[in-house]
Amino acid sequence: MSPGRLEAFADGVFAIAATLLILNVDGAVGGEGIDLGTELRHAWPSYLAYAVSFVTIGIMWVNHHTVMAQVGRVDRRFLVANIGLLMCIAFVPFPTRLVAEHIRGAGAESAALAFGLTMTVTAIFFNVVWLYASRGERLLRADADRRVVAGITRSYLPGPWIYFGAALVAFASPEASALLYLAIAALYVVESSLFGGRSTLED
Amino acid sequence: MSPGRLEAFADGVFAIAATLLILNVDGAVGGEGIDLGTELRHAWPSYLAYAVSFVTIGIMWVNHHTVMAQVGRVDRRFLVANIGLLMCIAFVPFPTRLVAEHIRGAGAESAALAFGLTMTVTAIFFNVVWLYASRGERLLRADADRRVVAGITRSYLPGPWIYFGAALVAFASPEASALLYLAIAALYVVESSLFGGRSTLED
Amino acid sequence: MSPGRLEAFADGVFAIAATLLILNVDGAVGGEGIDLGTELRHAWPSYLAYAVSFVTIGIMWVNHHTVMAQVGRVDRRFLVANIGLLMCIAFVPFPTRLVAEHIRGAGAESAALAFGLTMTVTAIFFNVVWLYASRGERLLRADADRRVVAGITRSYLPGPWIYFGAALVAFASPEASALLYLAIAALYVVESSLFGGRSTLED
Amino acid sequence: MSPGRLEAFADGVFAIAATLLILNVDGAVGGEGIDLGTELRHAWPSYLAYAVSFVTIGIMWVNHHTVMAQVGRVDRRFLVANIGLLMCIAFVPFPTRLVAEHIRGAGAESAALAFGLTMTVTAIFFNVVWLYASRGERLLRADADRRVVAGITRSYLPGPWIYFGAALVAFASPEASALLYLAIAALYVVESSLFGGRSTLED
Repeated sequence: MSPGRLEAFADGVFAIAATLLILNVDGAVGGEGIDLGTELRHAWPSYLAYAVSFVTIGIMWVNHHTVMAQVGRVDRRFLVANIGLLMCIAFVPFPTRLVAEHIRGAGAESAALAFGLTMTVTAIFFNVVWLYASRGERLLRADADRRVVAGITRSYLPGPWIYFGAALVAFASPEASALLYLAIAALYVVESSLFGGRSTLED
Repeated sequence: MSPGRLEAFADGVFAIAATLLILNVDGAVGGEGIDLGTELRHAWPSYLAYAVSFVTIGIMWVNHHTVMAQVGRVDRRFLVANIGLLMCIAFVPFPTRLVAEHIRGAGAESAALAFGLTMTVTAIFFNVVWLYASRGERLLRADADRRVVAGITRSYLPGPWIYFGAALVAFASPEASALLYLAIAALYVVESSLFGGRSTLED
Repeated sequence: MSPGRLEAFADGVFAIAATLLILNVDGAVGGEGIDLGTELRHAWPSYLAYAVSFVTIGIMWVNHHTVMAQVGRVDRRFLVANIGLLMCIAFVPFPTRLVAEHIRGAGAESAALAFGLTMTVTAIFFNVVWLYASRGERLLRADADRRVVAGITRSYLPGPWIYFGAALVAFASPEASALLYLAIAALYVVESSLFGGRSTLED
Repeated sequence: MSPGRLEAFADGVFAIAATLLILNVDGAVGGEGIDLGTELRHAWPSYLAYAVSFVTIGIMWVNHHTVMAQVGRVDRRFLVANIGLLMCIAFVPFPTRLVAEHIRGAGAESAALAFGLTMTVTAIFFNVVWLYASRGERLLRADADRRVVAGITRSYLPGPWIYFGAALVAFASPEASALLYLAIAALYVVESSLFGGRSTLED
């Protein structure tokens, strides 16, 4: 299998997982309420959760391509690791709904924890995928840029710890934990807006 | 990342968002009614809303390709802007259901407003994506046609205002507002049917 | 836009519409019944409807490629006609559920009618798409095979009438109508199995 | 039609079927319970079923590419056989939910049986697709590797029997049957981890 086919399959899972997020928003507005306007305003955590998860999945999609741009060939282990990663990505809509539904109620702690742990495992799989491909330049392209390779390793390693830390915050304050997930996504957008125009992305 | 990969991901989101619209129609016919025929006839706003949103998403898909046909490379800011645009596209099935369900009831104003504001924000993101790419020919292909570039800018700029205007009409008459959304989609189809055969689309 | 991009978008809608059909089967087995085995056996119309619609969408996907293989360029009218066709394809899961749910009950006539009319309109759009592309060889490839072109026209023209006829049968007997939809799909499979191995498909 | 287009359509169905599995997990946690944490812990069969089915579909996706890598052209019979295969793949989310929901209840036997029979029929279609393409090298590439071709035939033939056997175990013990489905997926992952790094996959 060529890296291109893996990318096409991964693109599909990323796109579907992101688009399915709207079903959570849809489920949050039943329409049985007396006043639709009030109900729509009251559902604001659903919109916020939708935006945070959509952007987070979008960022992960960009990251996956950053990885694949350095990969020249794939083996079966690499495919299995990618299937594990995509299994996590496709899981994201579930904890997203939990946070949107429960952040204002008694289940806030469990919901924030579920979201954070999902992201932690996803970030671990990202590292597994990348380290397997890059260790000893196992699957890298012959002309892979060593500076870019080292940069990816550096930027992926803290991922699991950041999300695990944000998840643990849920025990003290689920709201603070949810705000951290929002901040992580926002940070990336702000950082891209400030510095993301400097250089064109390589393919 | 090459423009081609962004297009493939965007195509996925457009196709899924459009296809998910059928879930709204499906939800509108519960099957618990005594007479299925009556229920099916009574659900006509769902069919109309389905058609309007499907065609609108279809038009936006065509527009996105018109943009990408002029783009020669992408940077991280451009990707983030596109993720924002796709976040709006994937949101469309939700206000579509609201309009279909509530246009004949007390929630008509809120529903028509929600649809119009979603379209307004979508049209704003279309302008952000395009203006970022075209300002100073930042991301355009070396051989981009200046006449086509100016034409796209001219045709996208009024978009947010048209949808915002149609949204505001909801305060006076939600039905009129919904008819305007239908008219915008119909206009494009009629205009394409009259003039869309003149020249082949460039790729 | 190149024909290839239209094909990619269309492939997405075909694949998603077909895969969403499983949600109908899923909805038919609530799991609240006392005995799951009995419930699963009782849901047989859902499996049959799933198979008939999946195969029918699959056949239409093959037919769409047969069309696109002769098309050398696209214009805006052709895109709009295709969006109309895809709007019908994405609609199929809805009447499929109606038939599966109501074929044994009072709504059988309405359900069979809804399915047949959906298929009739889909077949009409197939003809619109093809006739627009092929009339005067408007959008055909320079090297399009006249024999193949005439063959497609001949085989598409009766489509709407066949499905409309099968739909009208619903007034006399909804079960007979449903059996006709099954027979149309089965006929194609049998015919392909008998003669479909003779020549390789052109691309 | 080129093998590439069939692959793209198949990739779509595989990706959507896998991503839709999350709807089962979502449905298992209603959120009406008093304590979300307890509810989340109690839903563990849903997570396990999600993982097993996602990995199983992922493996089948890899297998489908292994087949297509040897195929040089397609005919109509081959397409029909592939539509049958994809119909089975898209069916998987349904029995997955049944097992997750009923494995601890009275419906365990029926659920395990439904899952196993779905997998058996899927494995049969895999053999049909492969044997049709490879018999007498009917659709194989001119440069297809005879050793690889013989290897695929050898490794696919036992598939239906393994899954049928695991399905029959459900009559004695549904839990044992479910564990076997898990073991089959786990075995592939372990085997790939041990030996899957040896050689690069051919395209």
